[in-house]
Amino acid sequence: MIALLKEIRHNPLLWLLAFVPIVFIAGIAWPEAHTLLFVLSVLAIVPLAALLSHATESVAAKTGDAVGGLLNATLGNLTELVISLAALRAGQIMLVKASIAGAIVTNALFMLGASFLLGGIKYHTQEYNRVSARLQAGLLFLATIALLVPSAIAEADSGAGTAFTSKLSVVLAVLLIVTYGLGMLFSLKTHREFFGSVTHGEAEEEEPWPIGIALATLAGVTLLVALVSEIFVESVQEAAVTFGITPAFVGFIVVALVGGAAEMTAAFSGARKNRLDLSVGIALGSASQIALFVAPVLVLLSYFIAPAPMDLRFWPGAVVMMLIATLTASLVTNSGRSAWFVGVLVLMVYLIFALTLYLLPPGAR
Amino acid sequence: MIALLKEIRHNPLLWLLAFVPIVFIAGIAWPEAHTLLFVLSVLAIVPLAALLSHATESVAAKTGDAVGGLLNATLGNLTELVISLAALRAGQIMLVKASIAGAIVTNALFMLGASFLLGGIKYHTQEYNRVSARLQAGLLFLATIALLVPSAIAEADSGAGTAFTSKLSVVLAVLLIVTYGLGMLFSLKTHREFFGSVTHGEAEEEEPWPIGIALATLAGVTLLVALVSEIFVESVQEAAVTFGITPAFVGFIVVALVGGAAEMTAAFSGARKNRLDLSVGIALGSASQIALFVAPVLVLLSYFIAPAPMDLRFWPGAVVMMLIATLTASLVTNSGRSAWFVGVLVLMVYLIFALTLYLLPPGAR
Amino acid sequence: MIALLKEIRHNPLLWLLAFVPIVFIAGIAWPEAHTLLFVLSVLAIVPLAALLSHATESVAAKTGDAVGGLLNATLGNLTELVISLAALRAGQIMLVKASIAGAIVTNALFMLGASFLLGGIKYHTQEYNRVSARLQAGLLFLATIALLVPSAIAEADSGAGTAFTSKLSVVLAVLLIVTYGLGMLFSLKTHREFFGSVTHGEAEEEEPWPIGIALATLAGVTLLVALVSEIFVESVQEAAVTFGITPAFVGFIVVALVGGAAEMTAAFSGARKNRLDLSVGIALGSASQIALFVAPVLVLLSYFIAPAPMDLRFWPGAVVMMLIATLTASLVTNSGRSAWFVGVLVLMVYLIFALTLYLLPPGAR
Repeated sequence: MIALLKEIRHNPLLWLLAFVPIVFIAGIAWPEAHTLLFVLSVLAIVPLAALLSHATESVAAKTGDAVGGLLNATLGNLTELVISLAALRAGQIMLVKASIAGAIVTNALFMLGASFLLGGIKYHTQEYNRVSARLQAGLLFLATIALLVPSAIAEADSGAGTAFTSKLSVVLAVLLIVTYGLGMLFSLKTHREFFGSVTHGEAEEEEPWPIGIALATLAGVTLLVALVSEIFVESVQEAAVTFGITPAFVGFIVVALVGGAAEMTAAFSGARKNRLDLSVGIALGSASQIALFVAPVLVLLSYFIAPAPMDLRFWPGAVVMMLIATLTASLVTNSGRSAWFVGVLVLMVYLIFALTLYLLPPGAR
Repeated sequence: MIALLKEIRHNPLLWLLAFVPIVFIAGIAWPEAHTLLFVLSVLAIVPLAALLSHATESVAAKTGDAVGGLLNATLGNLTELVISLAALRAGQIMLVKASIAGAIVTNALFMLGASFLLGGIKYHTQEYNRVSARLQAGLLFLATIALLVPSAIAEADSGAGTAFTSKLSVVLAVLLIVTYGLGMLFSLKTHREFFGSVTHGEAEEEEPWPIGIALATLAGVTLLVALVSEIFVESVQEAAVTFGITPAFVGFIVVALVGGAAEMTAAFSGARKNRLDLSVGIALGSASQIALFVAPVLVLLSYFIAPAPMDLRFWPGAVVMMLIATLTASLVTNSGRSAWFVGVLVLMVYLIFALTLYLLPPGAR
Repeated sequence: MIALLKEIRHNPLLWLLAFVPIVFIAGIAWPEAHTLLFVLSVLAIVPLAALLSHATESVAAKTGDAVGGLLNATLGNLTELVISLAALRAGQIMLVKASIAGAIVTNALFMLGASFLLGGIKYHTQEYNRVSARLQAGLLFLATIALLVPSAIAEADSGAGTAFTSKLSVVLAVLLIVTYGLGMLFSLKTHREFFGSVTHGEAEEEEPWPIGIALATLAGVTLLVALVSEIFVESVQEAAVTFGITPAFVGFIVVALVGGAAEMTAAFSGARKNRLDLSVGIALGSASQIALFVAPVLVLLSYFIAPAPMDLRFWPGAVVMMLIATLTASLVTNSGRSAWFVGVLVLMVYLIFALTLYLLPPGAR
């Protein structure tokens, strides 16, 4: 408990925890104040995501390398997963799909680009492990390809119906999860030396909590995220109308930035300490995980908890953006060195996507 | 003759040669048993392809380096060419196109991925010549681009009619063959040192036959492949209906795997002997050859032997798959090192394509 | 004046300057002889472009490094800009867009490929600075992506109307120019050592003129190019009909080759002197500049000087060609070494594009 309080005192991000009770009170007091609830729930999720991330790492640190790495990898995108589950239960499949696509694009462009920029402002050029970056970028590229095959085929072939897309999506979801499992076997067991510096870096950075506190925090905070997500999902559509933004923008940009806030803090802090390996690893790893784990799990769970099953067919614009994002990440991390302008370029691509979605008329998806 | 028999005794694949007479007898006895004839003809083509490959290498080894390399390169995909010619004569242009696309995808993904996996199971990491792999991947990428321009333009521009596509296809076919010729001048004459290890490796591996045997085998086996291909092409459509698989799946996956069986054996054996240069060279080289030589030759020959001329306009789904396959091969061979999981990822992309084609409703192409 | 005359005597390209008065006389004498005027104006623009290029470099050499680099970078594509402005004023927006797309494709494929081929004929293999080539190829890739987002989204989403595309184009134009400015800060100020060899090479090659001559030439020749461009733009459509070529071919191939003649001379001469860094830098840098500076400036100026505003929505075929061209340039410059066949392959892709546009029926855009 003391560890938790100490953590909160040290980390200004966690002061936002005050918004957690506020959003619950507001949810009961003014259930129709959608815009207010939207803003409050965003402010409440950000610190909860940070706590969740730290609790996961603490549990991982205590349970030994293999199990710990497994936990860390699986629960790394827990916030995104919980928010998406809330949206899935509410039948908001468009929002879920937009947030999957957005999380990949945001991790591969915004997190990577901002890390390069923040690091590049402080250091003239930064070097990082080219081999492991290429491996991770390759993994991300293939994961994205796998995720996009149903959309590409459905787009290319108007004869392919919804039944075909649904069946293909379920089969692919299983394949993706199998690939994810093999990928963990690879990175945590048979070839861990390639990924070494990343895990090592993270563990070193923050002091782990005792296991009891960590587990309790993990359980409690997950529950809190789930509850706040309910309010967030309920309010998001109406709030989007008020702000005059498209649902695509909300899913793609807002949810992705909110869900990834904790990882971004870690990636940016790594970049400022000239440890770009850490930043690149978090950005590419997190994006791969969305494609290989979060998205297929959501497809499979949609058959049980959603009003209608979800398939892997994305809006063509999202397909283009995901492909460009992963291709950009591949090309940019290819050289193993970075300077501030590389960050600017990657961020510019992200900004262009965000602006496009912002300007897109609401009727056009 | 003794050399031939010795070869057959040593290579279990060649025991399948027993199916060659069986398929001819069955073809006469039960001309309507399409499913049986399909299975038998597949089983008969595989060992014939292996013999053809060995005979070509033996002739190549005897005729000196330049001519030998030329022969080896030109006849390397002879099986695919002969099967496609049989399909072309029968007017099955869809099958020909699917098998061209499938051969590129199968070589660039399945052959490469399985080589990485088989090698990676035995060796922790494998290194190969990055420079020559990049050169070959670049060649494959550009060859694929050239092959796909008519499809891309026809897709992008609905005003472009069939007459335009036909004319463009013929012009491109000539250009591709010229490029292929220049490529051989490059790899066999002016810059052979880049491609050295591949040819060297192959020559060293198996003992060449005497030239007389080799030439006779080459001629005789080509004739046999042509005859079996006739039966194969006649039976494939009806057999596909029986098995409930789409024609796209047959052309893309079955024909490509059958036609490439011999090269795959060589590539996989290279990978298991930690000579990935050999495997990568065969996989990428063979895929390039389909794009630069087999496909344009078929376009030009279609004006003489087919009921209707063939153009280079592919089904959009095939275009997407060819592009992804060559891009994946480029990205994956970029680093010059491999581990088992890289193979898994590449195979997974292939598996996803195969599953998509398998699940695609027959009406949708 | 003597410097100018000496330059003209040394450079056979400048003998074409004789066509400048001829085209003006012909324009007055036979205003309806469109084909003649087209040919004469092309012949007149080429030497003017060469003069412009030399004058710019001379001014740049005199004004010190930072300002000089800035001038050199900004005025490097002055000919393209002036021709496009003439077309824009005449309301020929299709021609402007085709020439933007064509300039990117021509620089990234023709200039690069011909440099590799010309250098490769003389030298067995050529090495160049991989790091700076990758950085420039990455810049070009991202610039092209940014330029193509409106087309991709408009294509993917039929609900996105013209108003949306126009608004997005203006916002992107501003973003692209900001990126261009930051890119110059990067390459001329904070990280100039990466780009060093290129600028150095160019300065060393030709003797700069006195500043007075240079400035006067710059002003006078720009005016002449503008005047000849008027005649060129007026005659180009009718001439295209006479020659039986499509407007797309004219914009894409003819205008791009004419406008880039001066830079090509420099790039090719660098390649023949085994200084591929220079050639790659000019080719990739010039293509990036079109995307990041010329295109957005034209979009913004179109609101003031054109009968109707221009957006950044390109014909889908042009989008495909620009993407393939930049991807090819990225892949090909990735290895930092070149041989003649790499040049052949890149030129082949360009030739395929040119043939496609040449064969495209005029009705199909």
